[in-house]
Amino acid sequence: MDCVFCNIIAGKEPAEIIYEDEKVISFLDIRPINFGHALVIPKKHYENFLAVPGDEMNAVSNITQKIAEGVNKGLGCDGFNIIANNGKAAGQTVFHFHFHIIPRYNTDRFNYRPKLKSYDIGSMKEFAEKIRIAVNK
Amino acid sequence: MDCVFCNIIAGKEPAEIIYEDEKVISFLDIRPINFGHALVIPKKHYENFLAVPGDEMNAVSNITQKIAEGVNKGLGCDGFNIIANNGKAAGQTVFHFHFHIIPRYNTDRFNYRPKLKSYDIGSMKEFAEKIRIAVNK
Repeated sequence: MDCVFCNIIAGKEPAEIIYEDEKVISFLDIRPINFGHALVIPKKHYENFLAVPGDEMNAVSNITQKIAEGVNKGLGCDGFNIIANNGKAAGQTVFHFHFHIIPRYNTDRFNYRPKLKSYDIGSMKEFAEKIRIAVNK
Repeated sequence: MDCVFCNIIAGKEPAEIIYEDEKVISFLDIRPINFGHALVIPKKHYENFLAVPGDEMNAVSNITQKIAEGVNKGLGCDGFNIIANNGKAAGQTVFHFHFHIIPRYNTDRFNYRPKLKSYDIGSMKEFAEKIRIAVNK
């Protein structure tokens, strides 16, 4: 398996590591949206958000909070985005689950929001029902 | 306090609720990026990602996985984004912490990625160091 994140964990690829423990590692994205853009990942290879077991997801979430606080305080940014892209259709490029922590500034004015849609009458309920059925299966 | 999400939890505002337990609730965003765009929030009001206590973050993360799986299977989408915007600079509009789950399709071609930056020589290390110091404080 050739996974760039697994290679970073194994010390075979260089990275600016921010934090590391038994289960989780955090390092800077080499192609940042803003400087200081960090990633937090489980050390074990899981393809995406759905594949990460609950206890490791807890570890990743809690360390993501810790690193986000560090990004916030260390860089003095005005806000930050937490993003996980899952699947090629969602923009995932490395298939080892990762949370992005993207520092944001009042002046950067990125527009993350594509045009928002409106539900036709009744269709919101239909979409909710499809998801509810799948959740409860 | 006038919080639209607290009002949904209290049953004072209508919502297409997908899931609810003691700590966490999930419902559809009324202004979706794609239809079926869901939100997952702690029932207690916390302004943002940093303010949520660890045990509630675990509950929110685990339910977000559960609902994302439901979105994925229920809608048959090709991928999904998990997003939490923190602070006005990051696009946060409701100041009650929430994860977005946005179903994505190969054909929707939203571009979430603003132009990526490149670090000048040495500057990546400096950014990492600022964050490391703040994390370890």
